[in-house]
Amino acid sequence: MIDIRELQDSIQRTDSKIVMLVVDGLGGLPRSSDKRSELQVAHTPNLDSLARNSACGLTIPVLQGIAPGSGPGHLALFGYDPFKYIIGRGALEAIGVDTIDFIDGDIVARGNFCSVDTDNKLVDRRAGRIPSSESKGLCARLNQVEIDGLDLKVYHVKDYRFVLRIRGENLSDRLTETDPQRTGIAPLRVKARDSQAEVTAKAANEFIVQAKAILANENRANMVLLRGFSGMPSLPSFSDSLKLKAASIAAYPMYKGLTRICGMDVIPSGDTFSNEVDSLIKQFPSYDFFYIHYKDADAAGEDGNFEAKVTALENLDTHIPQIRDLNPDVLIIAGDHSTPSIMASHSWHPVPFCLWSNLTQGEGVDSFDEKSFRNGSLGTIAAVDIMTLALSHAGKLTKFGA
Amino acid sequence: MIDIRELQDSIQRTDSKIVMLVVDGLGGLPRSSDKRSELQVAHTPNLDSLARNSACGLTIPVLQGIAPGSGPGHLALFGYDPFKYIIGRGALEAIGVDTIDFIDGDIVARGNFCSVDTDNKLVDRRAGRIPSSESKGLCARLNQVEIDGLDLKVYHVKDYRFVLRIRGENLSDRLTETDPQRTGIAPLRVKARDSQAEVTAKAANEFIVQAKAILANENRANMVLLRGFSGMPSLPSFSDSLKLKAASIAAYPMYKGLTRICGMDVIPSGDTFSNEVDSLIKQFPSYDFFYIHYKDADAAGEDGNFEAKVTALENLDTHIPQIRDLNPDVLIIAGDHSTPSIMASHSWHPVPFCLWSNLTQGEGVDSFDEKSFRNGSLGTIAAVDIMTLALSHAGKLTKFGA
Repeated sequence: MIDIRELQDSIQRTDSKIVMLVVDGLGGLPRSSDKRSELQVAHTPNLDSLARNSACGLTIPVLQGIAPGSGPGHLALFGYDPFKYIIGRGALEAIGVDTIDFIDGDIVARGNFCSVDTDNKLVDRRAGRIPSSESKGLCARLNQVEIDGLDLKVYHVKDYRFVLRIRGENLSDRLTETDPQRTGIAPLRVKARDSQAEVTAKAANEFIVQAKAILANENRANMVLLRGFSGMPSLPSFSDSLKLKAASIAAYPMYKGLTRICGMDVIPSGDTFSNEVDSLIKQFPSYDFFYIHYKDADAAGEDGNFEAKVTALENLDTHIPQIRDLNPDVLIIAGDHSTPSIMASHSWHPVPFCLWSNLTQGEGVDSFDEKSFRNGSLGTIAAVDIMTLALSHAGKLTKFGA
Repeated sequence: MIDIRELQDSIQRTDSKIVMLVVDGLGGLPRSSDKRSELQVAHTPNLDSLARNSACGLTIPVLQGIAPGSGPGHLALFGYDPFKYIIGRGALEAIGVDTIDFIDGDIVARGNFCSVDTDNKLVDRRAGRIPSSESKGLCARLNQVEIDGLDLKVYHVKDYRFVLRIRGENLSDRLTETDPQRTGIAPLRVKARDSQAEVTAKAANEFIVQAKAILANENRANMVLLRGFSGMPSLPSFSDSLKLKAASIAAYPMYKGLTRICGMDVIPSGDTFSNEVDSLIKQFPSYDFFYIHYKDADAAGEDGNFEAKVTALENLDTHIPQIRDLNPDVLIIAGDHSTPSIMASHSWHPVPFCLWSNLTQGEGVDSFDEKSFRNGSLGTIAAVDIMTLALSHAGKLTKFGA
């Protein structure tokens, strides 16, 4: 695989504009009753109309048979080899929240409040999904933890989730996680994966001991789980290397974090997709690449709610005309992975991909769904290759070789 | 390409069971009379029914345009990069026969009895395919060969085929073969490919000289050919690295040998496919991955016998219900390569591939053949990627990245 960055000499800045709408968990699978997928069932006249005038195909997010997290799923869409650029969950969370003070040398972890019984066995890995109103105060109390020579800080994120930041000398993120991923057994101890990480492992375990003591009298949130230990990731800048002025429009912290790591400008986007579209319209003159994120399809799929995913896709459809009215030179609808409702999880299935530009005239695909897109002109391609297609269709990638 | 073994941290043991039925030489080509392939002509109601409820596609065995031997064709199906893991023919034969004493440091070669004329020119590269009843005694006589400082042993395999094993100090398999692959010229001398192999080359040539003398009065089998010199191969274990308890069910020695090298349990399988299916049924509770091999399609294709290949495929079809009745969680029908009857040889053509699980609902493919499978949801994929699909569909491969 050639990294798109190796093509830098062939990339030129132009006035053309690219909008990449990433529909989280876009792809689905047929349900057994009528053998139709969420996209096949959903009434999406605007997406169908777009598909009729676009180049269509399917993307393999990472590799055949591999269900990716949203991190690698997105990185591939932005042209980063997801096996080369690995970003820990802690860093994704930390960078997504503006107020978290996270710098080079720090180690961050994603924390969950959880519930354990008197034998320290996990009863609920999310402490009954306690609301932010309850967990904010708990985070404040966890900031009483003190460890010699280190500066620890707990930041509330949302509901039962927080970020732990450890600051000090010679820290390492080569640590194992404490979440055993199931109930009925005790949280695991943090272990160093190599000798350089032993000081950090000891600190993380000491944090957990003190945290447990602080939370001892809590009903639900009487323990914490830590995972995704990570230092500050370092990626070549998407904006610099692809010569784009790139804006990221996402409501959820994780996607803000991810795109900030990629070197995009994360612009204020409100809480809903309507807010995001408003933001896109407002900022449209100021950038030439826009990433805009739609979360609801994935959330419904993860819940195993076929009808809710259909509704989420239909809601998305109503926003398409506003985006087309901006007249971007290239409009891409892609997904970071599939989230079939019948699986209630991310999956490895190829994801519908649609690219409109004034060069695409349609190709007989008349419906926006997995099956129709199998016959699209793009075929089934690697997600990591779509940025080259985007740049070419936007006239930003010149001929390779004489 | 990412080696599936790099995903080890994402693989989990589960109770789910995978059956991979490898139909040797599965793919074919249309004959000129009615432009239909063997699979299109064959009446295969059970395979068709399976395809109607499966994810279908085509596999490229090794690379576009490359006709593989059964070795690399199978290795790819098991997730081994066939360019990285090369196993000599000698080792394949030797490891497949239980009674052959072959250990680290030994060099083995696949031997053929052949016929030469009075000028030592090849007349028949297989000595008229002499039967085992005749060749067994000849092998016993070849064991009279003695070379100073070396322990040589000739093992009968089947018909005109034998294995020569050389045991001694500092041997090397970096040797050229003696079979010129055509008649009318003399067998070649063994040459060392590098200086470390000169002792072994000399021994092999000395063996041939003595063997020719021993066979001088034979009518047909009056000479030997040696090829596929190889030491003991070393591959990462399929079972360990993919966290599977894997059973191999194959009647032919070469496939036993190959899967033994891969670290599968080679279980007694009789001589026919019926025996193999009986063995599968018997062992079904004891393993969670089953490789089961069907040879007849390849044999008929190699003979250039279109009708015989059709019959072989129809015979295979009658066994499918027995296998489905076992209720494996994932059932795969794959081929190691195509063997089109019109070519009478292995070929590079994409091979039909079909994966059934409770996640596959069918996708409009209604017939088990090359042309129908082109429209399957899997598209055309690399054979080396199918184990990831198998593991994912079996719930054994967890999400990659956060």
